[in-house]
Amino acid sequence: MTYPVEVDTLLEARWIIPVEPAGQVLHDHAIAINGGLIKAILPKTAAQLQFSPRERIVLDEHVLIPGLINLHTHAAMSLMRGLADDLPLMEWLNQHIWPTERQHVSAHFVLEGAQLACAEMLKGGITCFNDMYFFPEACAEAALAAGMRAAIGMIAIDFPTVYASDIDDYLAKGIALRNQLHPHPLLSFCFAPHAPYTVSDQAFAKILTYAEQLDLPIHIHLHETQHEINSSLESSGLRPIERLHRLGILSPRLIAVHMVHLTEDEIKLISQQGCNVAHCPSSNMKLASGFAPVTTLLDYGITVGLGTDSAASNNRLDMFAEMRLAALLAKANSNRAHALPAHQALRMATLEGAKALGLNEITGSLTVGKAADITAVDFSDIDLSPCYDPASHLVYAAGREHVSHVWVNGKMLLNNKQLTTLDTMKLQQYATAWQARIKASNQQ
Amino acid sequence: MTYPVEVDTLLEARWIIPVEPAGQVLHDHAIAINGGLIKAILPKTAAQLQFSPRERIVLDEHVLIPGLINLHTHAAMSLMRGLADDLPLMEWLNQHIWPTERQHVSAHFVLEGAQLACAEMLKGGITCFNDMYFFPEACAEAALAAGMRAAIGMIAIDFPTVYASDIDDYLAKGIALRNQLHPHPLLSFCFAPHAPYTVSDQAFAKILTYAEQLDLPIHIHLHETQHEINSSLESSGLRPIERLHRLGILSPRLIAVHMVHLTEDEIKLISQQGCNVAHCPSSNMKLASGFAPVTTLLDYGITVGLGTDSAASNNRLDMFAEMRLAALLAKANSNRAHALPAHQALRMATLEGAKALGLNEITGSLTVGKAADITAVDFSDIDLSPCYDPASHLVYAAGREHVSHVWVNGKMLLNNKQLTTLDTMKLQQYATAWQARIKASNQQ
Repeated sequence: MTYPVEVDTLLEARWIIPVEPAGQVLHDHAIAINGGLIKAILPKTAAQLQFSPRERIVLDEHVLIPGLINLHTHAAMSLMRGLADDLPLMEWLNQHIWPTERQHVSAHFVLEGAQLACAEMLKGGITCFNDMYFFPEACAEAALAAGMRAAIGMIAIDFPTVYASDIDDYLAKGIALRNQLHPHPLLSFCFAPHAPYTVSDQAFAKILTYAEQLDLPIHIHLHETQHEINSSLESSGLRPIERLHRLGILSPRLIAVHMVHLTEDEIKLISQQGCNVAHCPSSNMKLASGFAPVTTLLDYGITVGLGTDSAASNNRLDMFAEMRLAALLAKANSNRAHALPAHQALRMATLEGAKALGLNEITGSLTVGKAADITAVDFSDIDLSPCYDPASHLVYAAGREHVSHVWVNGKMLLNNKQLTTLDTMKLQQYATAWQARIKASNQQ
Repeated sequence: MTYPVEVDTLLEARWIIPVEPAGQVLHDHAIAINGGLIKAILPKTAAQLQFSPRERIVLDEHVLIPGLINLHTHAAMSLMRGLADDLPLMEWLNQHIWPTERQHVSAHFVLEGAQLACAEMLKGGITCFNDMYFFPEACAEAALAAGMRAAIGMIAIDFPTVYASDIDDYLAKGIALRNQLHPHPLLSFCFAPHAPYTVSDQAFAKILTYAEQLDLPIHIHLHETQHEINSSLESSGLRPIERLHRLGILSPRLIAVHMVHLTEDEIKLISQQGCNVAHCPSSNMKLASGFAPVTTLLDYGITVGLGTDSAASNNRLDMFAEMRLAALLAKANSNRAHALPAHQALRMATLEGAKALGLNEITGSLTVGKAADITAVDFSDIDLSPCYDPASHLVYAAGREHVSHVWVNGKMLLNNKQLTTLDTMKLQQYATAWQARIKASNQQ
């Protein structure tokens, strides 16, 4: 017999759903964490003999899952949460969101907005998010202050804003940020051309060159609305996916967000090209964009992760809500109650998101050697009684309100529902101050 | 100047959304409650001068709304929450739900299951529910123990169960219960023929006679699935709605639950007949029944309330989830982002439910003279910052986790998220015990 091995932390839980292997539910197991990594997953009793932890945490009524990965958001827009609801898309954008952005967005706005978003996401069990917004350096700063993992979008758009003057300026700023921070244990980077209708062919060519050179994902809104497709047909004679295909953008490095309106041929094409999809069901419904054909995408073997989109079009950064909604919508749209079962919804919210971001060697499942990005969900609430199946409970009955603990890279960021790295009182004050400014300008 | 009037309670809140008048949001107002009724709604400062309350409650970061009305549930089925998810409807029913019911349902099961449901519903801001299940006397007992308002279904079904032997036995037991408890300040009664495919023409004729004589609603599952319609066409040559129309069942006393598959002519007919609809979006999606044409129903002026259905097919008794889902689905299905706006979703979850139950003189809005059935939602959480519009916040951003206080008939049943009438520890024990029994029998 060997002596117990010293480790930083031993988490003992009633259930563990590691996501890999698929469909597995472990009972009365423990996770040993050392140096930020998962060192072992084994039965509690064996773990207690084998490890001598500096910290032992017993979660007797909890399920441990991989930290949730929000595959599409604009974190800073939390400051515009519910600014203008129940409006047609173009009125929402033209009369409310864009004017507010023109008037208020700054590095300061993005820093405080993204911190607000990080607080909400961490409380809801999200450990990693894929962001697209102006002043990405401020979003990176917010994520690091929170201790979260983030894929920072190097935004590119074909018109000047307070952030950058032209496409070269956008790309230069994004790449400079990436070069400054790379490599980083928590941050990764994506090129983030906003959408086909805001980025020219020439700009896509540059982005593709850089993305291949730096081996980075490309994160873009794609086929969100019928309007987008019609405009593209008018301006280029091509649907956006066909246009991007000709430009060489369709590849395994593409994270295509929304993908609501798709022909079967387009689905085949993106499957052949190995593209990834970020499904954002709440946002697609709230803005009346439509329903993404998720079960067909999955049938074609396409990697589909889940995203909340921003709090301006959701209005929750709540991956539990997206998991549940994705599973329910898939059933209703496919007329099959067994479509998109609970384990698959959880996998989309974790491992599939990690794959899309190229981070699946690091996160997305509870696997020995991966980072200890872990979310604990407390099943002791009366709302969750009884519990026959922890996986279906997680997706259909539980909500983000049941998340009790969160770790990223082995560091506890949420402890019994209390954030350890962020000051919620201060964030409330920021939010209230921005609200007053934004409200005043909207009433002018 | 008159002396202050003594009242039981003065609730002071940052916002009040009374639902009547439609679209109104009151700032810094108070509700005076006396003898269980709403005595006044007026600005805080005026209220402090005008009333001398025995109890004063200050809710400075909260919105007060009418207590939510769950227009369709089977409360006791909470004991089967998540028993069998992700299964085709008939497999779910035939191999899991019905065998479990045959083996386990009793007055004892219903009492403990309904208490569990009441705890969950109260915590989530629901003050009134419309129930359909066996042993309705046990459900009534659970509601009264909790202090909730309930519409008790006098269930009728054309086959024998442990509860009753034949249709006359069902009806006799239901009517005896109603006669025993009527009139009651918290309880009302509905005839509850289960569905067109489980109730004969003769039984419907009897139910109609009694319903007219006693002036009570009729609560029935209707046009839930295409399968139901096809079976009806095979057996009677009529779609269920047409069959019920010929039987005289379509009238303002009908609460038709689900109503997923409808022709335009059927919608016109139920509009002309003044029928009410209980829309259950989560359940319809989870069982892959389809999407109810809610915006069309509303365009025809039909009263549409919201229901959770049971925890076996949802798996949350969560009216916040149903409000949000109803609003999002209506937008996506109608291709109009301004369809079913927030105020309308809240109205469906409150006043429209009360109207369907014939209780709108008593509850469903914060109106002077109505019962003090009130839910307080705490907007101080970081997840709800900032707040531009309390109504849209309530529907799109808030969740049941933000409900802090609940009153029914002026009695506080939830105080700072703590239930005042129910013992959650005991309910947990009941749930665990039933789970063990049910699980054992399911594994045989």
